[in-house]
Amino acid sequence: MSRLPAFGPKEYADRLRRVRAAMAARDLDVLVAADPSNMAWLTGYDGWSFYTDQAVVVTHDDLPVYWGRHMDAQGARRTVWMDHDHIVGYHDDWVQATDRHAYQHLAAWLVDHGHARARIGVELDNYYYSAACHLHLGEGLPDADLTDATGLVNWQRTIKSPTELDYIRKAALLVTRMHEVIRERVRPGLRKSSLVADIMHAGIEGVGGDDGFGGDYPAIVPLVPSGADASAAHLTWDDRPFEPDTLTFFEIAGCYRRYHAPLSRSVYLGTPPPAVRRAEEALLAGVAAGIDAARAGNRACDIADALHRELAAAGIEREGRCGYPIGLSYPPDWGERTISLRANDTTVLEPDMTFHFMPGLWTDDWGLEITESIRIRADVPAEVLADVPRELVVVDA
Amino acid sequence: MSRLPAFGPKEYADRLRRVRAAMAARDLDVLVAADPSNMAWLTGYDGWSFYTDQAVVVTHDDLPVYWGRHMDAQGARRTVWMDHDHIVGYHDDWVQATDRHAYQHLAAWLVDHGHARARIGVELDNYYYSAACHLHLGEGLPDADLTDATGLVNWQRTIKSPTELDYIRKAALLVTRMHEVIRERVRPGLRKSSLVADIMHAGIEGVGGDDGFGGDYPAIVPLVPSGADASAAHLTWDDRPFEPDTLTFFEIAGCYRRYHAPLSRSVYLGTPPPAVRRAEEALLAGVAAGIDAARAGNRACDIADALHRELAAAGIEREGRCGYPIGLSYPPDWGERTISLRANDTTVLEPDMTFHFMPGLWTDDWGLEITESIRIRADVPAEVLADVPRELVVVDA
Repeated sequence: MSRLPAFGPKEYADRLRRVRAAMAARDLDVLVAADPSNMAWLTGYDGWSFYTDQAVVVTHDDLPVYWGRHMDAQGARRTVWMDHDHIVGYHDDWVQATDRHAYQHLAAWLVDHGHARARIGVELDNYYYSAACHLHLGEGLPDADLTDATGLVNWQRTIKSPTELDYIRKAALLVTRMHEVIRERVRPGLRKSSLVADIMHAGIEGVGGDDGFGGDYPAIVPLVPSGADASAAHLTWDDRPFEPDTLTFFEIAGCYRRYHAPLSRSVYLGTPPPAVRRAEEALLAGVAAGIDAARAGNRACDIADALHRELAAAGIEREGRCGYPIGLSYPPDWGERTISLRANDTTVLEPDMTFHFMPGLWTDDWGLEITESIRIRADVPAEVLADVPRELVVVDA
Repeated sequence: MSRLPAFGPKEYADRLRRVRAAMAARDLDVLVAADPSNMAWLTGYDGWSFYTDQAVVVTHDDLPVYWGRHMDAQGARRTVWMDHDHIVGYHDDWVQATDRHAYQHLAAWLVDHGHARARIGVELDNYYYSAACHLHLGEGLPDADLTDATGLVNWQRTIKSPTELDYIRKAALLVTRMHEVIRERVRPGLRKSSLVADIMHAGIEGVGGDDGFGGDYPAIVPLVPSGADASAAHLTWDDRPFEPDTLTFFEIAGCYRRYHAPLSRSVYLGTPPPAVRRAEEALLAGVAAGIDAARAGNRACDIADALHRELAAAGIEREGRCGYPIGLSYPPDWGERTISLRANDTTVLEPDMTFHFMPGLWTDDWGLEITESIRIRADVPAEVLADVPRELVVVDA
C-alpha cells in the first residue's frame, strides 16, 4: 500500500471513458461527483476531507477536475493522476461559514469555464451533496439544467478490474485474520472494547509480516452487538464484559487501499439454545444456496430467493435485502448503493461483480449473521473471497 | 461506558427545552433533525445507521420521535429515553431503493400526524440530509413551509454539562495515552500502518485497567502524513515505513461515549532543520497566547488573533481557521460546525464551551500541528484537557 494513484493510467482512462458514455446516454455535458468513492475511483483522490465540500467535475472534452478546500487541493496534488492545473482549491473562508457556501464558489467556477448553460448531472442522493449544496449550485447557475445523476458513476463500478480484485482479495486476507483474532480471544468477562481494539489492530497491522501489507480503515466500524442488543443490526460496542449465555455477531471488514471485504460471523458463549442452532443450520444452507445461485446470467433476486427458500424450508420467514455490491468506499457505507440482493431486483449478474452476501437473521432476542464477500463467475458458483469457517463459534462459558 | 441513554432524564428534558425555545424564536412548529450528533444529543440514539435515512422529529407538544429503518428502530428501542411509541420504523424496501425514497415515508408520517401545513425546520446543510431527501420531503408536504434550520440544535450544544465534561475529560485521558504510544513506538523503518494500529488500539482498549474504561470510535480516523504529504492536512496513512529526516504530524482524538478530545502533536525523525525549529517555537508561543485569550467574555476571534500575532512576530503569516467546538460527534467530523476560531467570528466565549484549538502550519514541504482541546472558564485561561508535552517529539534517525 503506498500513496499516489492506486491504478495505472489505462485503468483511469477506461473509467473515464465509461463515465462519459453514461453521461452521453443521459445527455449530460457536465457531471459533478461529490461522492468520495466516485471521486477516488475517477481520480485517485484519497483523504479524510469529505467533511468539507469537494467534488470532481467531469466533462467530455477535458480531463476531470478536482475541486475542494485549498488544503485538500494540496492532498489532491499528492494523490490524483491529473496535472496540477486540474486541481482547484477554494479559500478557507468558505469552510463551514455561515455567510457563504462553498458551492457558490463551484457555481462561479463552472460559469467561468463555459458551463453556464450546460446540462449538469449532480448526485442528488449522496451524503456529501446536501440540500444546501444543491440550492446554492442552482442559484449560481440559473441558466443551467441540473439533473439527477445519482448512481451514474457507481453503476460503472460494479464490474471489478484485475487490480481491484487483487485489492479486494488482500482485504479478504485482512478480514480472515480479524476473525482469527475473534476466535482466539473472545470469552465471557472480556471487555467488548478490548476485543474490538484487537480486531481493529489486526485489520490495520496487516498480514504477512515484513513482506506482507498493512490495512486501511474500513468505511464502517465493527458492529458487535450481543444478546438482545443484536436484535438491532447497527449497534457498535461498549466497554462492558461479554456475558455468558449470549449470542454476539461480529460484522467487520478488512480494507486495503479503500477496497473492502466485509464478513460477519457469530459467537455463542455457552451452549447455544436449540432455536439458535436451528437458525444456524438454516442459515448455513441458505448461504450455500445463495452462493450457488450467485453466478453470471442469474439475477440479483435469484440469490435472495435461493436464501429465502432454504430459510422458509426451515420455517424461517425472512425478507429485506441480503446483500449489496462492494469495492472502493469511504464512510459511512462500504456498499456501492446500486444493486440490492432482494426479491424485486432483477439486475443480471456479470463476471467480476463483487458482493457482500449478507443474510442476517434478527429476532427480538438475538441476532445471527453469517455472511460472505463473493465474486461472480461464469458457469460456476461465486468465488468466496475470504477463508473463515462459517459455523457458529462456540466458547465454553 | 454502557449502552442506554448516556444522560439522566433531567438533562434530556433541558436539552429539549432549549431546542424548543430556539424553534419558537424561529417560529418553527416542527424540527426534522437528521444530523446523527443532534439525534443522539436529543434522544440518546446511538448506532452506525446514518448511512440510511433517519431523523428525529421535534414538536412543541409531544416528546421527540425517532424515525428510521425498521432494524434501526430496534436499535432505538435499546438506546433512546422516549417510550417505544415514539419510535417509528420503515420497511426495508425503502432502503437505498431506486423506485422510492424513505423521505416519502417521513412526509406521509408527518401528514398523518397533523403537520401537513406546519412550518418545518430542516437541516439543509448536513451530510445526512441530501438534496434528494429535501426534494422528496417537499413533494410529500406541498402545503408545509420547509425552512432552513441548519445548526439550530448544534448551537444549543456549545455549552457542556458536567456529565458531558466528564466524558470529554475521559476522552482526553484516552488521547493522552494514544500520544504516549506514539512517543514509545515511533522510529524510522516502522511501518506507518503498524503505528496507526497501535494508536487505535490504545484509544479503544482504554485506560485504567479493570477499574478504568474503554474507548469509542473517533469521528475521524488518525491523520498521520509525513514529509511533503503533510503539506496536505487530511491524508490518512499507508503501509510504507517512516523515513528518516522527516516531520510527521499525528492528528488524533480520544472518544468516550461519542464525546471527543482531539489533539495533534508532531514528530521529527532525525535532527529538525532550523526552519522547523523556528516554526515550532513560534507555534508554542502562539498556542500559549491563544489559550490565554481563550476565556469567557472574549470572542472566538480573540483566540485566532492572539495566535496569529505570535506567529507574525516570528515572520509567519497564517490565516484560516484555528479551531472549532468539540463534543458529541459522528463521522465524518468531530467538530460541532457552529463557532469557528477565526478572524471574522465574533462569538462571545462562555464558560464550559469546549474547543479543539487547532493551529496547524502547513508549507509546501512539511506540516506542523501542535493543538489542544480546551474548556473555557471565567477570568482565567482555558483549561487544557489533556496532558501531553507540547514540544516537537525528536527521535534519533
